Amino acid sequence: MGSTFGELFRVTTFGESHGPAVGCVIDGCPPQLPISAEEIQKELDRRRPGQSRIVTQRQEADQVEVLSGVLDGETLGTPIALLVRNKDQRSRDYDEMREKYRPSHADYAYDQKYGIRAWSGGGRASARETVGRVAAGAVAKKLLATHWGVEVVAWVATVQRVTATVDPLSVTQEEVEAHVTRCPDPAAADEMLALIEAVRKEGDSVGGVVGCVARGVPPGWGEPVFDKMEADLARALLSLPASKGFEIGSGFAGTLLRGSEHNDPYQADPDRRVSLSSNRSGGVQGGITVGEPITLRAAFKPVATVLAEQSTVTTRHEPTTLKGRGRHDPCVLPRAVPMVEAMVALVLADHALRHAAVRSTVEPWEPGTPVPRTGC
Amino acid sequence: MGSTFGELFRVTTFGESHGPAVGCVIDGCPPQLPISAEEIQKELDRRRPGQSRIVTQRQEADQVEVLSGVLDGETLGTPIALLVRNKDQRSRDYDEMREKYRPSHADYAYDQKYGIRAWSGGGRASARETVGRVAAGAVAKKLLATHWGVEVVAWVATVQRVTATVDPLSVTQEEVEAHVTRCPDPAAADEMLALIEAVRKEGDSVGGVVGCVARGVPPGWGEPVFDKMEADLARALLSLPASKGFEIGSGFAGTLLRGSEHNDPYQADPDRRVSLSSNRSGGVQGGITVGEPITLRAAFKPVATVLAEQSTVTTRHEPTTLKGRGRHDPCVLPRAVPMVEAMVALVLADHALRHAAVRSTVEPWEPGTPVPRTGC
Amino acid sequence: MGSTFGELFRVTTFGESHGPAVGCVIDGCPPQLPISAEEIQKELDRRRPGQSRIVTQRQEADQVEVLSGVLDGETLGTPIALLVRNKDQRSRDYDEMREKYRPSHADYAYDQKYGIRAWSGGGRASARETVGRVAAGAVAKKLLATHWGVEVVAWVATVQRVTATVDPLSVTQEEVEAHVTRCPDPAAADEMLALIEAVRKEGDSVGGVVGCVARGVPPGWGEPVFDKMEADLARALLSLPASKGFEIGSGFAGTLLRGSEHNDPYQADPDRRVSLSSNRSGGVQGGITVGEPITLRAAFKPVATVLAEQSTVTTRHEPTTLKGRGRHDPCVLPRAVPMVEAMVALVLADHALRHAAVRSTVEPWEPGTPVPRTGC
Amino acid sequence: MGSTFGELFRVTTFGESHGPAVGCVIDGCPPQLPISAEEIQKELDRRRPGQSRIVTQRQEADQVEVLSGVLDGETLGTPIALLVRNKDQRSRDYDEMREKYRPSHADYAYDQKYGIRAWSGGGRASARETVGRVAAGAVAKKLLATHWGVEVVAWVATVQRVTATVDPLSVTQEEVEAHVTRCPDPAAADEMLALIEAVRKEGDSVGGVVGCVARGVPPGWGEPVFDKMEADLARALLSLPASKGFEIGSGFAGTLLRGSEHNDPYQADPDRRVSLSSNRSGGVQGGITVGEPITLRAAFKPVATVLAEQSTVTTRHEPTTLKGRGRHDPCVLPRAVPMVEAMVALVLADHALRHAAVRSTVEPWEPGTPVPRTGC
Repeated sequence: MGSTFGELFRVTTFGESHGPAVGCVIDGCPPQLPISAEEIQKELDRRRPGQSRIVTQRQEADQVEVLSGVLDGETLGTPIALLVRNKDQRSRDYDEMREKYRPSHADYAYDQKYGIRAWSGGGRASARETVGRVAAGAVAKKLLATHWGVEVVAWVATVQRVTATVDPLSVTQEEVEAHVTRCPDPAAADEMLALIEAVRKEGDSVGGVVGCVARGVPPGWGEPVFDKMEADLARALLSLPASKGFEIGSGFAGTLLRGSEHNDPYQADPDRRVSLSSNRSGGVQGGITVGEPITLRAAFKPVATVLAEQSTVTTRHEPTTLKGRGRHDPCVLPRAVPMVEAMVALVLADHALRHAAVRSTVEPWEPGTPVPRTGC
Repeated sequence: MGSTFGELFRVTTFGESHGPAVGCVIDGCPPQLPISAEEIQKELDRRRPGQSRIVTQRQEADQVEVLSGVLDGETLGTPIALLVRNKDQRSRDYDEMREKYRPSHADYAYDQKYGIRAWSGGGRASARETVGRVAAGAVAKKLLATHWGVEVVAWVATVQRVTATVDPLSVTQEEVEAHVTRCPDPAAADEMLALIEAVRKEGDSVGGVVGCVARGVPPGWGEPVFDKMEADLARALLSLPASKGFEIGSGFAGTLLRGSEHNDPYQADPDRRVSLSSNRSGGVQGGITVGEPITLRAAFKPVATVLAEQSTVTTRHEPTTLKGRGRHDPCVLPRAVPMVEAMVALVLADHALRHAAVRSTVEPWEPGTPVPRTGC
Repeated sequence: MGSTFGELFRVTTFGESHGPAVGCVIDGCPPQLPISAEEIQKELDRRRPGQSRIVTQRQEADQVEVLSGVLDGETLGTPIALLVRNKDQRSRDYDEMREKYRPSHADYAYDQKYGIRAWSGGGRASARETVGRVAAGAVAKKLLATHWGVEVVAWVATVQRVTATVDPLSVTQEEVEAHVTRCPDPAAADEMLALIEAVRKEGDSVGGVVGCVARGVPPGWGEPVFDKMEADLARALLSLPASKGFEIGSGFAGTLLRGSEHNDPYQADPDRRVSLSSNRSGGVQGGITVGEPITLRAAFKPVATVLAEQSTVTTRHEPTTLKGRGRHDPCVLPRAVPMVEAMVALVLADHALRHAAVRSTVEPWEPGTPVPRTGC
Repeated sequence: MGSTFGELFRVTTFGESHGPAVGCVIDGCPPQLPISAEEIQKELDRRRPGQSRIVTQRQEADQVEVLSGVLDGETLGTPIALLVRNKDQRSRDYDEMREKYRPSHADYAYDQKYGIRAWSGGGRASARETVGRVAAGAVAKKLLATHWGVEVVAWVATVQRVTATVDPLSVTQEEVEAHVTRCPDPAAADEMLALIEAVRKEGDSVGGVVGCVARGVPPGWGEPVFDKMEADLARALLSLPASKGFEIGSGFAGTLLRGSEHNDPYQADPDRRVSLSSNRSGGVQGGITVGEPITLRAAFKPVATVLAEQSTVTTRHEPTTLKGRGRHDPCVLPRAVPMVEAMVALVLADHALRHAAVRSTVEPWEPGTPVPRTGC
């Protein structure tokens, strides 16, 4: 269990790292959405290993095949199955993993849970599982852009202590893609690149923070109480491999302010359009969007595979040591960017449809017209 | 929608702040669990307003009534409905809210979503909704303690810049309850108290961080991919009012380490019992528990109600100002402690049952016996 | 588990027969729906025991209290909690049940499942549980009538071999309510009444069939594959106590026809409005409504409580005999009518909202305008 | 939406009749279950078109490929993706369908719902969708047989008025497979065969009833109220293409008995093993299994494709006529048998796991030991 995400825009992923294939089934994508395999492929290419010298050199074309749910370039409203074959698996690189648990990987946890595991390449716990997420996210992004003009942009905000300066109101995907680090601040990006290359040479790894913004989200998305927008976003991002933290709006730093400093005053223009004069809320209040950009950050730990010899135990639970091998990322951050965008898009698409159901029986209210009904 | 939490231990809360009642229905609590109204009441008393001079002075007895699912002190396996009547409502304190949106509250968001809202006292978005969560959490805690020996302890870790030193391995609920701030570090607690009182006098508010540990969780809880233990915990905590951030294990600080520093080596004792020699993982790897304590932190923004005059808009979307009134917390942190414990307990109880289903057809494996099967 | 129904219009019921209360929580009812306690009470009064001489004489006022989700007569979009206190319980009538399993009741099954049961009055398995369903159904009916003009009418179609003649296109609730049997065919109704009274005198019971029609349902409701409209209706009706069978449209009798006889030809009027010239489909094709009335039937077995002495076993699993006592229905059919309507309304309300989500991003198509897109 | 079935043993199917592929993803199958592609293939071969002269002559090898979740012949506990490519599609047979709605097919309903449809071969509404169900059902059957000794056998009980005599206690799959009709009563089977062949020559079709038994189901499976075993079975069977009715145990015929005749007395053998001396309950009481065989029946209407000319409308909503073409079944019953078994197995596997979660914290109770706790 646990491989399905969403209530109305619902994605199920499948596949082990070194099995025959990975992919996903999207159930609930509305009909008549124009979508092509190329649009999905474009996102997969951003996630793909081997795309630059600072990511893992596993060579995977990651060609997506659309198995169902799309006809003549339009969605049918029925399940969209997307398939990517695994190719360059080199299982021999992983032979030692059969008998030894890699520290801070999921090997031991899976054995404890299932009593069996696909030891080669991390199996289901491999970041290769995110192929299905990114493919589904491409469809969600298209839906969001087409019907609500929503745009989701993520970027590398920090690598270890190197910190970029990025304006969430204006940053573009082009700026993000302009540098192999996917950091849109060129100076910081170069510094990150130098750091990642140095770390790679040492056989070590670094982590960092991905920032993300969703612009154009209308007010009203998100459900009260447990399915708050920020709750679903937090779940989405903490479900990504290696993520250890989540913030929305002011996040942890917001705890250093007083209420009088932290509150976002409302303002209205002459056309009675309401906005916030600051956005420490991060675009949500009480779990519901307010028409401001959603801003969030996710922490990714340094990649667990390092070349140094480490203490660990065997599957017989005897002490041993293990030295990392195989083709891995010294820094997961650049490839995490499309994953973060995908997860945010999946949450938003789901909430867009859920909100449509809530509103299906009430008339929209336009600023300037008589006030909405207010109970009690 | 959005008022239900959990897959197998499933809680639905209901109620508006100034409506007739708040409460919850728990579906999926296993049968034969000893539980009394007193045990539930004890947790509600920790959450209750008016319990000390640094929390809101609303006077609510918050007496819980068990409507179903329990007979002669034992659960029946059927839905447990828990009811708390609202008493001290003073809606007149809220008259102005009818026409004006309180900054950084959910008033505007609810009007945008529903076109109607229970304006008095925050309605469904009031922290009063957490009564149902804390009541349900008391049942979850009892289940966890009874059947798995799991203990959940939360505490106030910071208030604004005042930071406590707390050892998650040893901190007890008694230590937490010993101080009105619910901070178990006496020196920091006194400093927090002084700060909160000063802020209250100024009509302002402060936020902070709640820390939490779950001890005794066996390995194997949590599902891969989307329902990772940390993902469900993140969702649970971000669903609490005023929360803006979540960390598990090393969290954001972990991004400053290298992989070789961050990894948790496995070790095995002579009885082949496996443990981690450090716990930067926070008790989970690949979304699944490994038998170490789960450690997490949640950020709570400063309470939005402050007595200073603030810019805002009317429900007609015209600029205006609003001055906070009513009885509110200058600092939500002490009362957030039982809420955090409740949410963590709900997540754990749910995953305990989900894992039981996964394991129902396989034999448990004991260290020292022949190795578990490992696929290729 | 198992006490929640629906995806978007989601109802959770709670309560044991002789516990403090029964009721429900509805999550997902859209905002701004006018609803009063009186409207809900009216449906509960139709379900209530003691309403006529042919149903159980348990005296229950069954007064509903609206605990949340409604303000000034309008729904808020938040959970609607509805509570009915249990009053006339006479647990002493049930003393023998503590030790002996009543044949064809759920006593033995519950003990096998849970190892504990609320033995008095049937506990959770009592038909008293349907109070929560009927209360929720009243809200669903109001939603359906208000927003889509949908009307749900059920009636007693047969009692044992006595069979009514009823036209689903025209039968009204007034006709149904005109007779204590809730059979709208006066001649058959009198015959049913005589049969039920004769059976009651003999301490025995009879079963029968409830018919039901939903008129005014627009085309397009229902989801393909597993959540077909007829599948959800079948689940809904088989979830009612004592139900043993379900048919939609031609049902079992349809298996006696050939395809050429069974098919429903489409026809179009000059305004290009499409309809079926027959309705053996029962209003659904491929799981989706086509704009014709939905017609269905549900079989209810004879009530299991009879006054004759019957063989059974004790809770120690020793043979014994048991003689029925207590106040029970000789025929559940008249009271099943509001239950069937409630369940059908819950299914329709849920699918109405689900379909709204599906359609939220596409323009409606009107007959006479350019053809809908048809994929290849 | 609507392409997912089950709570813990959860199946999602995908695929259109004339698209690239059909298949399914199973999430929640427990780990360490031995399963081979051959076992799945065997069930698909029973469902396959072209297997005998009385079913559709579409030639499909329907070769299944296991994409994930299985390693060295054992399940991993992770999603099992099963893929079947579509081969012999002959879309030209369906050209006319592009413009005309086939009576009593789902063409019109899909256009009304989605405004777009995969017109060729019925698209998602084609019985070809059941490939995914039957493949998933093969895994469910294996799980049931391996861990609980449960056996599911279905058969053709009637074709139009030809009725078989079958003993659900003893009928075997070998007896069912012995005749192309899948009717285990040889005399009735021959009569059915003659009828089907006659009907085929006339270009017409016939329907009938499939019977099914699940033997070896332990007591306690099924959840109270909405997720009753019979409710989920009813939903499962009414979700199959062409099904119009469902009965469990005595079904509609049970309404002709009195309570004193219908009740199933309990009996206990000297070892305190409890059983029913009759089984009009069909193996369930109060929605929960009692250790007796589950017996059910499902009605299938005559296939909608007939060669006679029929009245219908165009996609422009203008009257027209249509003459059936293409390769279709004159009688769906023989191929429905594996589909019914698959759906019943999916329901049982799901409830087996759900019940395991319910029981995970309580000790099993053995007859002869001290009595189970009885509340109140």
